[in-house]
Amino acid sequence: MTQPDSVNATAAAATAGPGRNLPDVSHLVVGVLGGTGDQGRGLALRLAGAGQQVVIGSRSAERAEACAAELGRGIRGADNAACAADSDVVIVAVPWEGHAETLVSLRAELAGKIVVDCVNPLGFDKQGAYPLRVPEGSAAQQAAALLPDSTVTAAFHHLSAVLLQDESVERIDTDVMVLGEDRAATETVQALASRIPGMRGIFAGRLRNAHQVESLVANLISVNRRYKAHAGLRITDV
Amino acid sequence: MTQPDSVNATAAAATAGPGRNLPDVSHLVVGVLGGTGDQGRGLALRLAGAGQQVVIGSRSAERAEACAAELGRGIRGADNAACAADSDVVIVAVPWEGHAETLVSLRAELAGKIVVDCVNPLGFDKQGAYPLRVPEGSAAQQAAALLPDSTVTAAFHHLSAVLLQDESVERIDTDVMVLGEDRAATETVQALASRIPGMRGIFAGRLRNAHQVESLVANLISVNRRYKAHAGLRITDV
Repeated sequence: MTQPDSVNATAAAATAGPGRNLPDVSHLVVGVLGGTGDQGRGLALRLAGAGQQVVIGSRSAERAEACAAELGRGIRGADNAACAADSDVVIVAVPWEGHAETLVSLRAELAGKIVVDCVNPLGFDKQGAYPLRVPEGSAAQQAAALLPDSTVTAAFHHLSAVLLQDESVERIDTDVMVLGEDRAATETVQALASRIPGMRGIFAGRLRNAHQVESLVANLISVNRRYKAHAGLRITDV
Repeated sequence: MTQPDSVNATAAAATAGPGRNLPDVSHLVVGVLGGTGDQGRGLALRLAGAGQQVVIGSRSAERAEACAAELGRGIRGADNAACAADSDVVIVAVPWEGHAETLVSLRAELAGKIVVDCVNPLGFDKQGAYPLRVPEGSAAQQAAALLPDSTVTAAFHHLSAVLLQDESVERIDTDVMVLGEDRAATETVQALASRIPGMRGIFAGRLRNAHQVESLVANLISVNRRYKAHAGLRITDV
C-alpha cells in the first residue's frame, strides 16, 4: 500500500507548516533530569547531536558525569539541582515513581524556566502496559501543580529509547506532540524537537489533554510487541 | 523537512507488515449504527466504495433509507435493529449521549457479532475539547460490559468526518488503531480498515487501553485548529 501522493504532500507540508515561525533555540542550554536513564540518555544524545548544549542530571553528580563522558558530544553531567540551575529548558525524564519528589526538591532551581515533562505513568502486568491513574490528571499536570513558578509543557512521550540511543539511526521518523498553556514555551519546545532529524514538534493541546498522550505509550508498546517494531507517530495533513 | 528514506521505508512496510495474513472480509456485510451522522455517513461511503456491502442504521428507518439513497454505492438503510440483525460486523457511530441506551436496546440483534465501537466521549468548552470520564473506562469498555454476547472491538476513532465524506479525496493518509481482546475479531476489523485507500488497520492493544485512543481526538482537534488541518495519525516503523 504505497502512497506517493499523500506522502509527498506530507513532506511538503513539513517544510511550510508547523516548522514555520518557530523561534531560534540554538543558544538554549537544555537540562535532562533523569539523564542517566534510557530515555534521558537518548534525548541528550539527539539534542546534543543537533547542536544543543546539554547537561544531564542525576541524583549523583559522579554518575551523571560518568554517563556524560560516555555519551560525548560535549554533554556535561551534574547533580539534578545544578543541572536545573544551569539550564534554560529542563526536560523531566525521571521514573514516574520519583516524579513528584524530584520536582518538589527542585522548585527553586526550576523557577522561571520552561519545564518539559515527558514522563508516562504506566503500570505493567501479564497483559502488558496500562495507564496509571494520576490524581492531578497526568504527570504534566502534576508537574504544573508542583511548580507554580515554572512554565510546564509536555512532550517527547512517544519516542523509542532504543532508537534514540542507537547512533547508527540517523533519522527518527516521528512527530513530537507538544502540550502546554503558554504559546512561547510550547513553540520553544516544538523548535527543540524539530532540530532532531526526522522529527517535527507539533502543538497538540493544553495540559488537561496530556493524560491520553502519556497513556498512549501503552498502545505503542502493544504495537511494538505485535509487529516487532519501534513505533512512532506521524501526524498527517500537517 | 522531507524524509524520503523513512517515508519509503514506511510505504514498503505497509505492504509486507500489518496487512499480511489478514482475513478476506470482502463478503461481510457491515452495519453502521448512527449511520446518518457525519462519521457514520463517511465510514459507510468509504467502506462501500471499497466494495463492502453496507447497511446504515438510524432510529428512523425512513431517515436511514433517505440517507442511503443519497449516499448511493449500493448502501442500504434500515432502522437500527434491522441494521444490526442484517450485518456481520456492526460499527457503532452514535453520539456518546445515546451510546449506552442504543446498545442495550440492540443486545439481541448484536449477539454473536463483531461490534466496532468508534465513539469518542468528549466534552467541549471555551478552551476546546476534553475527554469525559467514563465509569467503565472508555466507550469501548462500556460497550463490552453492555454486550456480553458480542465480540467488542474499538477502531476508526481518529478519522476526519470531513475527509471521509469528501468524495474528491481519493486516499486518506492515516492508520486505524484497532483494539480488542479477540484476535480473530481485531484482524477482521484491521482487514476492513485496510480496504479503504490510504489506511492500514494496526493492532494497538486491549480494550483497557481504549480510553486514551478515544480521548486523543481532543488533541487532534487542537492540531486541526492550530494548523487548519484534518489531522490523522500514521504509525511509523510498522
